Amino acid sequence: MDFTPDARTEQLSGELRDFLHTRLVPAAAVFDDQVAALADPWAWSSVPVLQELRAEARERGLWNLFLPGDTGGRRLGAGLTNLQYAPLAELTGRLGRLAPAALNCAAPDTGNMEVLAMFGSPEQQERWLVPLLEGRIRSAFAMTEPDVASSDATNIATSIRREGGEYVVSGRKWWITGAMNPQCEVFVVMGKTDPDADRHRQQSMVLVPRDAPGVEVVRPMTVFGYDDHDHGGHAELAFHDVRVPAANLVGEEGAGFAIAQARLGPGRIHHCMRAIGVAELAIELMCARASERVAFGRPLAEQGVVRDWIAQARVRVEQLRLLVLKAAWLMDTVGTRGAHTEIQAIKVATPQTVEWVLDKAIQVHGAGGISQDFPLAAAWAGVRTLRFADGPDEVHTNALAKAELRRQAAVRAPAG
Amino acid sequence: MDFTPDARTEQLSGELRDFLHTRLVPAAAVFDDQVAALADPWAWSSVPVLQELRAEARERGLWNLFLPGDTGGRRLGAGLTNLQYAPLAELTGRLGRLAPAALNCAAPDTGNMEVLAMFGSPEQQERWLVPLLEGRIRSAFAMTEPDVASSDATNIATSIRREGGEYVVSGRKWWITGAMNPQCEVFVVMGKTDPDADRHRQQSMVLVPRDAPGVEVVRPMTVFGYDDHDHGGHAELAFHDVRVPAANLVGEEGAGFAIAQARLGPGRIHHCMRAIGVAELAIELMCARASERVAFGRPLAEQGVVRDWIAQARVRVEQLRLLVLKAAWLMDTVGTRGAHTEIQAIKVATPQTVEWVLDKAIQVHGAGGISQDFPLAAAWAGVRTLRFADGPDEVHTNALAKAELRRQAAVRAPAG
Amino acid sequence: MDFTPDARTEQLSGELRDFLHTRLVPAAAVFDDQVAALADPWAWSSVPVLQELRAEARERGLWNLFLPGDTGGRRLGAGLTNLQYAPLAELTGRLGRLAPAALNCAAPDTGNMEVLAMFGSPEQQERWLVPLLEGRIRSAFAMTEPDVASSDATNIATSIRREGGEYVVSGRKWWITGAMNPQCEVFVVMGKTDPDADRHRQQSMVLVPRDAPGVEVVRPMTVFGYDDHDHGGHAELAFHDVRVPAANLVGEEGAGFAIAQARLGPGRIHHCMRAIGVAELAIELMCARASERVAFGRPLAEQGVVRDWIAQARVRVEQLRLLVLKAAWLMDTVGTRGAHTEIQAIKVATPQTVEWVLDKAIQVHGAGGISQDFPLAAAWAGVRTLRFADGPDEVHTNALAKAELRRQAAVRAPAG
Amino acid sequence: MDFTPDARTEQLSGELRDFLHTRLVPAAAVFDDQVAALADPWAWSSVPVLQELRAEARERGLWNLFLPGDTGGRRLGAGLTNLQYAPLAELTGRLGRLAPAALNCAAPDTGNMEVLAMFGSPEQQERWLVPLLEGRIRSAFAMTEPDVASSDATNIATSIRREGGEYVVSGRKWWITGAMNPQCEVFVVMGKTDPDADRHRQQSMVLVPRDAPGVEVVRPMTVFGYDDHDHGGHAELAFHDVRVPAANLVGEEGAGFAIAQARLGPGRIHHCMRAIGVAELAIELMCARASERVAFGRPLAEQGVVRDWIAQARVRVEQLRLLVLKAAWLMDTVGTRGAHTEIQAIKVATPQTVEWVLDKAIQVHGAGGISQDFPLAAAWAGVRTLRFADGPDEVHTNALAKAELRRQAAVRAPAG
Repeated sequence: MDFTPDARTEQLSGELRDFLHTRLVPAAAVFDDQVAALADPWAWSSVPVLQELRAEARERGLWNLFLPGDTGGRRLGAGLTNLQYAPLAELTGRLGRLAPAALNCAAPDTGNMEVLAMFGSPEQQERWLVPLLEGRIRSAFAMTEPDVASSDATNIATSIRREGGEYVVSGRKWWITGAMNPQCEVFVVMGKTDPDADRHRQQSMVLVPRDAPGVEVVRPMTVFGYDDHDHGGHAELAFHDVRVPAANLVGEEGAGFAIAQARLGPGRIHHCMRAIGVAELAIELMCARASERVAFGRPLAEQGVVRDWIAQARVRVEQLRLLVLKAAWLMDTVGTRGAHTEIQAIKVATPQTVEWVLDKAIQVHGAGGISQDFPLAAAWAGVRTLRFADGPDEVHTNALAKAELRRQAAVRAPAG
Repeated sequence: MDFTPDARTEQLSGELRDFLHTRLVPAAAVFDDQVAALADPWAWSSVPVLQELRAEARERGLWNLFLPGDTGGRRLGAGLTNLQYAPLAELTGRLGRLAPAALNCAAPDTGNMEVLAMFGSPEQQERWLVPLLEGRIRSAFAMTEPDVASSDATNIATSIRREGGEYVVSGRKWWITGAMNPQCEVFVVMGKTDPDADRHRQQSMVLVPRDAPGVEVVRPMTVFGYDDHDHGGHAELAFHDVRVPAANLVGEEGAGFAIAQARLGPGRIHHCMRAIGVAELAIELMCARASERVAFGRPLAEQGVVRDWIAQARVRVEQLRLLVLKAAWLMDTVGTRGAHTEIQAIKVATPQTVEWVLDKAIQVHGAGGISQDFPLAAAWAGVRTLRFADGPDEVHTNALAKAELRRQAAVRAPAG
Repeated sequence: MDFTPDARTEQLSGELRDFLHTRLVPAAAVFDDQVAALADPWAWSSVPVLQELRAEARERGLWNLFLPGDTGGRRLGAGLTNLQYAPLAELTGRLGRLAPAALNCAAPDTGNMEVLAMFGSPEQQERWLVPLLEGRIRSAFAMTEPDVASSDATNIATSIRREGGEYVVSGRKWWITGAMNPQCEVFVVMGKTDPDADRHRQQSMVLVPRDAPGVEVVRPMTVFGYDDHDHGGHAELAFHDVRVPAANLVGEEGAGFAIAQARLGPGRIHHCMRAIGVAELAIELMCARASERVAFGRPLAEQGVVRDWIAQARVRVEQLRLLVLKAAWLMDTVGTRGAHTEIQAIKVATPQTVEWVLDKAIQVHGAGGISQDFPLAAAWAGVRTLRFADGPDEVHTNALAKAELRRQAAVRAPAG
Repeated sequence: MDFTPDARTEQLSGELRDFLHTRLVPAAAVFDDQVAALADPWAWSSVPVLQELRAEARERGLWNLFLPGDTGGRRLGAGLTNLQYAPLAELTGRLGRLAPAALNCAAPDTGNMEVLAMFGSPEQQERWLVPLLEGRIRSAFAMTEPDVASSDATNIATSIRREGGEYVVSGRKWWITGAMNPQCEVFVVMGKTDPDADRHRQQSMVLVPRDAPGVEVVRPMTVFGYDDHDHGGHAELAFHDVRVPAANLVGEEGAGFAIAQARLGPGRIHHCMRAIGVAELAIELMCARASERVAFGRPLAEQGVVRDWIAQARVRVEQLRLLVLKAAWLMDTVGTRGAHTEIQAIKVATPQTVEWVLDKAIQVHGAGGISQDFPLAAAWAGVRTLRFADGPDEVHTNALAKAELRRQAAVRAPAG
């Protein structure tokens, strides 16, 4: 369990930090202005400054860092381990939405690229994966449904039925991140091909082009008051008997649940790494504000309650980062399945810690903290969603407890 | 300390509940549509449905209920005590923004009407109070400043200097609720007339018409992504040497701090009462959702963690309501000043409890809970602001502790 | 819901406060010394100073205050309502164990006297109730069992079977408070007379003299490190086919559960009232210590974190007391059954609040706080037991949630 | 930052686990019986079973594992790094008091041996260190004082003044762990030799034999009712002009503060490691109990709230252990001073987590959990003391915050 960054990680961290400070930080305001000036407010990924930054990131070798090298036998990504990627992802988390996008390391494309790299057919890879890897198009992942508790995969109501050489997709999805963006050209859709199969073999995934007849983008959802238009938003989608070629099936029929699980492991750890970057930003802003703001004759930094927040924040974030690194190390050494419990643990622990840190940083900023003048409120809303993204935390704590009870029972049981 | 609602409160509660259920609940969607169709999105108070509801409320005797009868020797309001008004305000809190507005009981107009009723000159009352009481115009209260910790009144940087028959106002304010609304015709502005006076005699208040030369509405602020345009928003304002007649002074020079304190007592208790209504709505929605939503084979309502939330929510809200009623009763019997400690206590206790209840209600709703489909996320954002509205909670807990330490020291001290 | 203390309460409060300060506070050290000098360390109730104090309390009319006047048609107690008794019980809570004992208002005798007054036969009352009311003997209540979750009454394993004119009691009990005391002459024992009856009609109660053949006092239990010998301890008891006359049955066969419920209501509210007295003592000690103790150049009372604790303690205790008063008022107006939900609420809320306050008071006292030099650690241990006394809090939150869900469902349901 | 246990750690862990399970677990009851049978209840370390276990531990090479090999140029201990020692200490923590004592790894002797090894003169080492290393005598560390906040070293009131060839010690100490034990032959006493020196040069340490004239063992202190007699108790001591030879000075005059700091680093990390062992034991017992105990028709292990506790316990303990390992690794690589911040962090984080876990484990055990039948309540009391041992946590969070504020300010400051 060696968490020391190796030479490559150190080097990439240095280069990334340089790129962030010299290029991305100054570009943030330009990006905001260009997004604000768009005719279609959702077409965020088309603004010129982002194209320039992406070109430069690619040139600097800071591109597709998220993607392990050995996906599907082809060398596509940077080939970093999770442990190598962790500090890089944390760095991008501090610069919110611009950094992951500039490096082609933004969800949900990252997970979709992993799915296509691991399970996509050569044709699917040619048509969708290559342009995604090159940053020419964007994608969305359509799993969550409005009418059921879709964290329980057996509840999925969208149907995908085979008719001749086609699949017909019918159903309703929401919170489909990125799907409001007109450049989002393909949806990875989870539905049921066989409701009578075993619990975890009922589901399949198909690729649905955004312009397929019958696809309806119903409306954007808001997260607290944010529409996240600078990130593609979160759409409600309706699939009205949408027909796609049978070749659009990802993997095989009945593999939907397994693919989703494989996708979630890296997705969760990336979220957690970035969230730690957010927490670091919050501590940084909290300290700066506390040092400069005077109330009742003393800087906030000299007031006991504020100091307690700062100390607790540091102690909590240190513990959380170590747990995320352990999960990354386990994924690298025993695989996503072997790291299942630890991935659930960080899924639960991360929002608990980062929400708390953000809340205190906001409080130190007073009313400014909840406004558009600081990144804290928007970050808070984003982190709050982690408590039900990929299933509510309560599902995960329940599973964690069952695993612990099993483990303890095994220890108690007589060996022979 | 008798909290039993008397006959008049019972009667008004019944009438109000009837009005809410039969008229306001059905009108909410109409209101939203009409606001959405406005040319100026901030002109929320001009929509027809609101005018109709207000006319009807007035006719039904459900108008200006917040205003005590004995203000300034004139009988203006309903003449209810705080204890009588409490359950009515709680009821309006459940219907968010529409109910207080329809009853002419919405902040910040309520506080401004109180100030004008208590401290306004007959001319000021004629020009501003009467149209406010009749719901023809709206107002804002300009105290908070962007560059200083304005919870400490000595930090106020806006200057109000006398020049001949005029006052000249210079400074910057933000979070001025309601000020984006073009119908908001007057600002009650707090500034310093004498920076060299005693700590609490430096400040004064003047009435500044929105259309006075030099008034600049700089921009709207957002609260966790919400611009609150359906409530007049929260503006940043700049006063560039704005000149108003000396007669626009409220009360006397140096009375600004005292007037602000007098205004804050009722304002805080109204906020708390409405917040309890919000908490009740959250419990109601949480129970309904938990009863109907099935996950892993059982309704959420049968899952232990959800039950724990529901029980804790009920236990906490009961305690909070009783404390608010006690504060109301104290205000009625010993006055705002005598109830100072209890008002601080509810200022601190209310967001602690209501935020927690809303967070759990949101979690039970899954992703829907943070969206525009339920009132929970917007309510959460509103309640979160209470933790620094009128000064951050930390200022109030500090004052509460000092009061307790003094009280205990007095008990310990030998009597003779 | 009028919580104002009436004239009689005011008068009794004054007299009680006088008795506490002038007689009981000075007597505490004497009591400790006399208990320490006992040959049988458990015979606490026999020490001379307690006899003197009890005689004086009786003379002053501060005797059996806990007992409502109308029990079983006979005028036995002070005849106070729960609302009248509440502030008196709170006062006794501040003086820990000595005050309730001196006033003959100490558990478990209080509950047992209520049971005998309400359900005892004239013979039982003559033999046991009268000496208890006069403070000549003591009693214990034997319900909890070591091997089962006895909060679920259907789990009770002790059997009480009828054989001719006798009942034969067999089983094991623990945590039987007071039972180590040789002056504890009678146990009220809960057991099953008919395991096949309806869930809540299987249990009965019988009176078992401590010296009946077959009664074994197995050992004392400790609460954290306390054996509570100055209060009669907590015994593990074994009943080895103990025979008692059939006339020792309390009420009728099958009434055990109902009697236990009737007993628990007042018992819980008394516990809660006294616990609030403990919390007040903790705030008092915390403030005194914080004011006098200097660290790093400033009194603790000027340090932000300590101030935050003091303020939060005050805010929480105020809320809790109001909830307890509401429960008392409900018991007085609609009866124990009608106040069921509120009694559960205070059962859950009280240890949450009082434990927290004690923990902070201890922390302000440093190592002294956990020692024998202050009453804080022992009080903490006592309050900690409330979280499973009469069933773990989780049983009660579960029941509270079910009641709330039912209530909300009834409101949602269409009236006709 | 490599936390993987190396071969030696793996081997020692295996051997230690074997010794614990085969020898110590069965011996625990024997130890308790022999301690109970002692004429002097404090002479715990003299019982035969402990001597046997210690002889065997020594023979097995499980002796003095805590002591780094390079102390003072002499090879005395096992020569383990902190990272190597960590999992061993955790294992001993699970067996409470017996395991550390049997392995000669029990506080406060461990810290005292470190002090003597690092700062003791050859004569001091010969007289005190050798018998301590061989387990023939025991020792105590006398720093804490009853009348001042001794976490602030400038408050130390005990004086150590030079008179000719002697030091004269006057003052009062309390919470001197181990000092009730008649086998405790020497006290390391902290006092002031020069109250006018610089803040951290006023203090010195001298060795005071327990039998020196003027040493008074005033009384034992209790910890939540426990007198900890099976561990030597916690004494209040008075030094009435106690004279010791000048050669009993440890290190040089004025070095007391520095020696105390050097001693505290390893001491704290050992406490934290053992506390994690306690938390693991609590999780184990909680799971076992939850699996076997049935309430309302289902095992506790199937009830949501209990599952939530188990999961949260696991998630928290994992994070804490990683932080402790990081602190150990830092101590090994950059020294105690370099690891100062992390040592403070674990000092604060450990009781927060372990108290919580123990509280929930207790709750799952019902009344049994607070009794002598399970090790949970005593463990809780022990862990609770960590929140002010070596200074209250609030002192450490304050220091942590200052360090963080400094670090952030340095990052903000322009480089050149």
